[in-house]
Amino acid sequence: MRTLITALFWGCLVSLSWAAEPLASWHEGTTKAAIVKFVERVCEANSAEFVPPSERIAVFDNDGTLWCEQPMYVQLAFALDRVKAMAADHPEWKSEEPFKSVLNDDFAGIAAAGKAGLLKIIAVTHAGMTNDQFESLATQWLATAKHPRFKRSYTECVYQPMLELLDYLRANHFKTYIVSGGGIEMIRVFSSETYGIPPEQVVGSSIKLVYERRDGQPALVRQPEVDFIDDKEGKPVGIQKFIGRRPVIAVGNSDGDFEMLEYTTSGQGPRLGIILHHTDAEREYAYDRSSHFGRLDKALTEAKQRNWLIVDMQVDWDSVFPR
Amino acid sequence: MRTLITALFWGCLVSLSWAAEPLASWHEGTTKAAIVKFVERVCEANSAEFVPPSERIAVFDNDGTLWCEQPMYVQLAFALDRVKAMAADHPEWKSEEPFKSVLNDDFAGIAAAGKAGLLKIIAVTHAGMTNDQFESLATQWLATAKHPRFKRSYTECVYQPMLELLDYLRANHFKTYIVSGGGIEMIRVFSSETYGIPPEQVVGSSIKLVYERRDGQPALVRQPEVDFIDDKEGKPVGIQKFIGRRPVIAVGNSDGDFEMLEYTTSGQGPRLGIILHHTDAEREYAYDRSSHFGRLDKALTEAKQRNWLIVDMQVDWDSVFPR
Repeated sequence: MRTLITALFWGCLVSLSWAAEPLASWHEGTTKAAIVKFVERVCEANSAEFVPPSERIAVFDNDGTLWCEQPMYVQLAFALDRVKAMAADHPEWKSEEPFKSVLNDDFAGIAAAGKAGLLKIIAVTHAGMTNDQFESLATQWLATAKHPRFKRSYTECVYQPMLELLDYLRANHFKTYIVSGGGIEMIRVFSSETYGIPPEQVVGSSIKLVYERRDGQPALVRQPEVDFIDDKEGKPVGIQKFIGRRPVIAVGNSDGDFEMLEYTTSGQGPRLGIILHHTDAEREYAYDRSSHFGRLDKALTEAKQRNWLIVDMQVDWDSVFPR
Repeated sequence: MRTLITALFWGCLVSLSWAAEPLASWHEGTTKAAIVKFVERVCEANSAEFVPPSERIAVFDNDGTLWCEQPMYVQLAFALDRVKAMAADHPEWKSEEPFKSVLNDDFAGIAAAGKAGLLKIIAVTHAGMTNDQFESLATQWLATAKHPRFKRSYTECVYQPMLELLDYLRANHFKTYIVSGGGIEMIRVFSSETYGIPPEQVVGSSIKLVYERRDGQPALVRQPEVDFIDDKEGKPVGIQKFIGRRPVIAVGNSDGDFEMLEYTTSGQGPRLGIILHHTDAEREYAYDRSSHFGRLDKALTEAKQRNWLIVDMQVDWDSVFPR
């Protein structure tokens, strides 16, 4: 009896594995093989490099790693659209920078306003409201906005091979996290549905929140003040703050991920660093050392000596976006 | 065949439930009944108040809620012991406050040094080292230090009924979090083993971390500067930052938990606020409105009108600490 049940049980499992071939959109080559080999090394119970499930943490950058970051960060597109949507209530913006440039689609003007200009844009579009109100605005925008080149929603401009990598890692009992320079609350509104990553597994940049009463109800109100920048040397800090463990796998695509990759792969025991190299101008974009968004320079130069795995989008991916 | 397997499967589950009677150390009374009734209301699939597992978040304060906070916060005992252990390298402390008072066990003197004095103690005992070094110090201390009255380690001065409540909630697919005013890294060193709560489900106060090189290796170095105070109105902020969802259940024991309870129970749908009232001078301690540590005043006054459940330690708990 027991044998029969065991057979049925394993039969079930085997059918499941067949049903969902892991990493189906990855080309059968050395990159895919290296990923699979690493996961097998740390997950096989009798492996010398076995990592217990509780310690299997995998962190993924978002912009340019899980979804498209060209021709500009999605969150910047959201902020610019919000300025336009709010402009009717702010006639003074017609002559006030950086808003004037935003309303005129003058990107050189926006760039000229620099960091101070960007903070002004963030202050009016991301603060001065409750967190729930911000969530609604971001959700509504994501439901309707389209990528200018691909003419599909931004949440459909995610990378199919990365969705499969997330699934594959979770099937192997990894806990998957986003560790992004982008705003944490913006990512949370779509990460569950799009990536299968719940809000509590999103680490990102944030502005200050204050707990106060609004219309007689307690609310978290967003302040026009930066709380935490989860980028570059902020990424290992964010990982420790939010996760409290050094990851086993880190996946990024730009120099903003350098410290996260360095911190992850300098830990003892088996560690894997992965860099997505955007090499596919036809299906997506080709950019690295001189890109304004997602510059990949130092991390690309040092990848080999640090044993980081480089994913060549054009070569390694059979498809880029979900069909 | 299928019927037989199904029967065996459910048979297994039933035996498991019998094997581990939930909330065994809770007295069979109205408090236990109210907790069980609430959990059944939100977990039964055909209940009007069903909450999907992904949204089942339960947050617990730590000091005085999960472990004993008298005669002083455990972390303060750690800091004072650290000052004594470090004193040989700091002869100047013999005449310098607040260290002089610490070395003389002069609690009035420590109190007189106020917040500035406490920050000095934290700076020398909690900062100026890597996070890994701090973890080692805290782990070693917890392994040897004893509670002055109960003569057992601090991690054995946790509340058995609360351990059972954590287990019961997890068995019902709640994700359990600590949301503490105490230092996040101190709690993380014992929370997995003691509470079954992994590091990534601990929210707490923190000092600033900086990512830099130490002995040629990247490290997170603890700075003598407060980053975040996860207490009072900081608790809902910490919950949103780290978890990104409003909890369904919040458990606390002091006015430091007021805003966490208020935020949790003012959400839409079923919510449960629980306050542990320390009423048992014989088995533990009896304190509330005038206690220096864990003062419970406003939250006790407002509990009834807010429908928060009060756990009376003396009445509701058959045992207090693990045997």
